[in-house]
Amino acid sequence: MRMYDIIKSKRDGHELTDKEVDFFVEGYTRGEIPDYQASALLMAIYFQKMGKEETSNLTMAMARSGDMLDLSLIKGTKVDKHSTGGVGDKTTLVVAPLVAAAGVPVAKMSGRGLGHTGGTIDKLEGIPGFDVSMNIEEFISNVNETGIAISAQTGNLAPADKKLYALRDVTATVDNMSLIASSVMSKKIASGADAIVLDVKTGSGAFMKDDESAFELAREMVDIGNGVGRRTVALVTDMSQPLGNAVGNVLEVIEAIETLRGEGPQDLREISLALGAQMLLFGGKAESVEEGRYILEELILSGKGLEKLKELVEAQGGDASCIDDTSKLKKASIQIDVMSEKEGYVASIQADEIGRAALVLGAGRETKESEIDLSVGVVVHKKIGDRIEKGESLATIHANDMQSAEEAKQIITAAYEISGGIVEKPQLIKGIVTREGTIMF
Amino acid sequence: MRMYDIIKSKRDGHELTDKEVDFFVEGYTRGEIPDYQASALLMAIYFQKMGKEETSNLTMAMARSGDMLDLSLIKGTKVDKHSTGGVGDKTTLVVAPLVAAAGVPVAKMSGRGLGHTGGTIDKLEGIPGFDVSMNIEEFISNVNETGIAISAQTGNLAPADKKLYALRDVTATVDNMSLIASSVMSKKIASGADAIVLDVKTGSGAFMKDDESAFELAREMVDIGNGVGRRTVALVTDMSQPLGNAVGNVLEVIEAIETLRGEGPQDLREISLALGAQMLLFGGKAESVEEGRYILEELILSGKGLEKLKELVEAQGGDASCIDDTSKLKKASIQIDVMSEKEGYVASIQADEIGRAALVLGAGRETKESEIDLSVGVVVHKKIGDRIEKGESLATIHANDMQSAEEAKQIITAAYEISGGIVEKPQLIKGIVTREGTIMF
Repeated sequence: MRMYDIIKSKRDGHELTDKEVDFFVEGYTRGEIPDYQASALLMAIYFQKMGKEETSNLTMAMARSGDMLDLSLIKGTKVDKHSTGGVGDKTTLVVAPLVAAAGVPVAKMSGRGLGHTGGTIDKLEGIPGFDVSMNIEEFISNVNETGIAISAQTGNLAPADKKLYALRDVTATVDNMSLIASSVMSKKIASGADAIVLDVKTGSGAFMKDDESAFELAREMVDIGNGVGRRTVALVTDMSQPLGNAVGNVLEVIEAIETLRGEGPQDLREISLALGAQMLLFGGKAESVEEGRYILEELILSGKGLEKLKELVEAQGGDASCIDDTSKLKKASIQIDVMSEKEGYVASIQADEIGRAALVLGAGRETKESEIDLSVGVVVHKKIGDRIEKGESLATIHANDMQSAEEAKQIITAAYEISGGIVEKPQLIKGIVTREGTIMF
Repeated sequence: MRMYDIIKSKRDGHELTDKEVDFFVEGYTRGEIPDYQASALLMAIYFQKMGKEETSNLTMAMARSGDMLDLSLIKGTKVDKHSTGGVGDKTTLVVAPLVAAAGVPVAKMSGRGLGHTGGTIDKLEGIPGFDVSMNIEEFISNVNETGIAISAQTGNLAPADKKLYALRDVTATVDNMSLIASSVMSKKIASGADAIVLDVKTGSGAFMKDDESAFELAREMVDIGNGVGRRTVALVTDMSQPLGNAVGNVLEVIEAIETLRGEGPQDLREISLALGAQMLLFGGKAESVEEGRYILEELILSGKGLEKLKELVEAQGGDASCIDDTSKLKKASIQIDVMSEKEGYVASIQADEIGRAALVLGAGRETKESEIDLSVGVVVHKKIGDRIEKGESLATIHANDMQSAEEAKQIITAAYEISGGIVEKPQLIKGIVTREGTIMF
């Protein structure tokens, strides 16, 4: 078998066989196939697309390229949750403790990643003492003892994906549904989940800018998951504006805590309940979505969800008293309000620009080496459809230097569009994609 | 400017600007743009094609990537000739001396290349003492003194093309008209010709397997040449069977000498006259194709073409007595005839398989490092349309070992298709592509 023939076959529109996919992924991971042949293949895939079976084969080949975590020592059905990412997306911090409190084991490995803010792992590090590094034995025993553990990726998960993603990133071959879907799913499968609930974001703050592509990506991923024996479902949810109000690591932790107290923003609560209900279904703790929601609402009311978060923090060495008193968390030195220059209704918010403001403040990483400032960020006060008066605050900037605060202020002002007439709020959950079909709400 | 954006722009179907093309070619030549980005761009070009202006810009950028030969010290219009290559194609050995004898200066730089047999340079080295290496001053002074010089490429001609071609070869991105055309033309333009006559081959022994693609490639190249101020014309000619009878380096030299004596095979003579007439037109030595042909026929009859070949050989240190007595040239130790197993008419000859037979015998290079055996090859006796009796010789194999001779015999036998009914000979010259238009004969 020769890599040349594999490139040519894909270039000419053929489906690659499982042997060809394995040859490519294994050879590339070992460094035997050079980058320049891999990038030519990726560009050919961009144009010729991949079939269902081919995409599944690619996913499994990438999953098998490194460690395949064995979570069989954890009792119960391990249900993982994954979001394609968006601005202000802190649902994991809400959903994971809730679901664990309902009795579904949460064994979550999370990346740091690049972006407007850090990943779940970075956010949790905003809690003093919280340790995200543990070996697989500690990880498993933590889940068995407290029902939940959240750790940075241990071991060597899907190195083929890591290497290919880096290559795609510099060769304009990221934007292909099969490649995006197999990249996400290979990591989820390698990290050992029995079932997967996906949150596919759509809108200005998401990777998928329109609903059609979001549903298409959701369909790809759901088919891959179910095709390889992992029950998978996806919700397609709105990212036309930040989710919740807070964008920034510690700010998001505080908002997640408030939501677990029943006091957080409505949209964050809604999406957390919807995702959590699907997880309870897969985990065998609810018979219907309605029952799942009811269970989760009860866990908020009773404070058991918040209690589980405290257990998680304690189990991983963090200071759990911060959960009850969030004023103990690290705070930025400067707070500045962004005032509206006119009155009316919020017509749109460029979510990716709010993200950029957070990045400018230092909340995220531009390169792998960047240091994150966990305290900074943006808290928006007005969302789409909200009434705003002239001089009223649109958002508060949390910064540690005036220069970045000024820059963020300009970005945020420009990101808001205010109109004279009444504006409808966007639909929060656009639909659900299951093995059986797609339902658009 | 970033290479990423250039790849994305081409991927999305845009024409690259001249600045983008320059950025890519210059950066890639200097090694600042990595192979993996170049191959992604090449694959994007494969799918999205290039426009006329874009292709011209690419050609000129590649031509400018190294030395641009200045042949202005040579008096008269320098007319170069280039063939896209085929089996048994020794036209340069016939045309170059004829055209030089007619007074058009021939300043030919030729590559060795990979293929069934060596290139023109290798073939000429079959003449004892013939030296193909000279510096540019010697080259120019030879042309001014004897009207002709044929040398191996000196200096650093179109290094961008060399590097890109090597990359295309291993990434399945060779088959694109713009890339093929710009590759050929960049070298021709860098080597300083004022006008260019192209011989684009079509058929089983050619790179272009069908007439349509051959005409398309001819059109691309003619447009590039004229677009950058080099008068260019292309003949599209048959390569459904070997050209002439001989395939192999010294064997081809002998056939070229016979043709200059007026005794060679009809098809080789015809194509040589047709190409040569175009060169005389560009060189201002004939007013019409008919006049050009007449002049060349006279030069064969008078022996002045052959005389010019001898002058060339002498000027470059070769033993010119070999031209009059070709038995002095190196001969293979084994001659074996391939007998026909049935009677009838030759319906087809897989020209590329005849080439492969020559390669198996050692006449060509499989890799750059391969040593060529100049004496070996194949001489076919029967061409398409010829009557053949059972047991009559189809071809003679010239070999230096029995094993390769046996292998070549099997290949040649399989390459011939004999049919019961009368078969028409293929049309030799399919058409001509000029700046003004295309005429199919």
